[in-house]
Amino acid sequence: MKLYVVGLGPGAPEQMTARARAALEESSVVAGYRTYLALVRDWLPGKEFLETGMKKEAERCRAALEAALGGKTVSLVCSGDAGVYGMAGLLLELAEEYPPLEIEIVPGVTAACSGAAVLGAPLGHDFAVVSLSDLLTPWETIEKRLDLAAQADFALCLYNPSSHARPDYLRRACDILLRSKSPDTVCGWVRNIGREGEEKRVLSLAQLRGEQVDMFTTVFVGSSATRQTGGRMVTPRGYRAAGKAEP
Amino acid sequence: MKLYVVGLGPGAPEQMTARARAALEESSVVAGYRTYLALVRDWLPGKEFLETGMKKEAERCRAALEAALGGKTVSLVCSGDAGVYGMAGLLLELAEEYPPLEIEIVPGVTAACSGAAVLGAPLGHDFAVVSLSDLLTPWETIEKRLDLAAQADFALCLYNPSSHARPDYLRRACDILLRSKSPDTVCGWVRNIGREGEEKRVLSLAQLRGEQVDMFTTVFVGSSATRQTGGRMVTPRGYRAAGKAEP
Repeated sequence: MKLYVVGLGPGAPEQMTARARAALEESSVVAGYRTYLALVRDWLPGKEFLETGMKKEAERCRAALEAALGGKTVSLVCSGDAGVYGMAGLLLELAEEYPPLEIEIVPGVTAACSGAAVLGAPLGHDFAVVSLSDLLTPWETIEKRLDLAAQADFALCLYNPSSHARPDYLRRACDILLRSKSPDTVCGWVRNIGREGEEKRVLSLAQLRGEQVDMFTTVFVGSSATRQTGGRMVTPRGYRAAGKAEP
Repeated sequence: MKLYVVGLGPGAPEQMTARARAALEESSVVAGYRTYLALVRDWLPGKEFLETGMKKEAERCRAALEAALGGKTVSLVCSGDAGVYGMAGLLLELAEEYPPLEIEIVPGVTAACSGAAVLGAPLGHDFAVVSLSDLLTPWETIEKRLDLAAQADFALCLYNPSSHARPDYLRRACDILLRSKSPDTVCGWVRNIGREGEEKRVLSLAQLRGEQVDMFTTVFVGSSATRQTGGRMVTPRGYRAAGKAEP
């Protein structure tokens, strides 16, 4: 009777921590969104899978809680990290409605880190992470956060930059960022991070504004210090600026 | 002749991804800060270790670059992620001074995610990551970022919240955050994440202001939506607020 909330990382088994893998192997039940379960099904024979569709997050958490309370060891899986826009928060909230239960959150590599590694080191200094999805957050809140993050000269990582229902959100976000950031700001995006069909591009903020990305894309916007280095996007921590890059 | 920059995660081998482990095993040379090399030495027999001290970051990168250019497969290790306040950025910058070389960044679980998992889900919605170290960044920049992040109602994760040389920086940071955030804001800290002697506390922003933490501690400050749930710190993504938590 234990419930793990497990961050899988970008998807491929080798991107998972050993601890995440051990939690999955110890579990008799694995619950999750259909697409994420597809990532782990093949190498987890003999497990019971509780599969739910998109926008069924509460149902998914409740199914996991009920299976665990029924005496099973359960893993509720999330892509990336368990906490960053993941299921850990909702699961912990809903758990309050049920009898006490041992719950362990197993972190994973979130897209901010896995996508950054593909591009170089865009988040090498202070940064902000913002989701452009207004499904659960008013657009005004998103706009305010983008505006203030740009004023603060944060590098940014944007999750959920687009979807069929909101194809112009990245352009709208860029317009807000352009109030404080230069159009030459170094930006990048990565699609299908660590999965088949991985693609990336390093480009300017002005170019990013005209880019059509999809929901499998993570977007990075530099600070004023971010630069291109050998085709990669790097936000320096400041060793060179501080004269500390020489032996 | 290949150079990996490898994020180890919090420290214990089971917190590492399989990909990070494979990079280390493939390497004949492992370079890094003394304290981080100590985390991996025991289970990597037969490797050559290039050990450097604190504040020797450029020297460490150059040693790794030179070993790789000498024909070896080299891993330069970082705690947490390779990019988030890690060595990836400086390594990529310095690599420009050398002949071309294959460099691969291997991401890891950064303290924002591993510490969050210990506390619950403090970074379940938009957040900012700020280092309080002014070794390489002017304090005015740090202050401005904290002030604007608080105005934006971001949850925050603070790296390097204190050291011997700057024991009062966390208090100073809290004073800035208190300009826009309520003293009742739910906060938390984790010390020695995923290592022996792991400790944590969930507390208010007013209490955090009086707390003495050390350099092995990661601090989390909630947004206005963050709350305590069964002793844990949770920043909801908004399913319940949007009436989407019922089946």
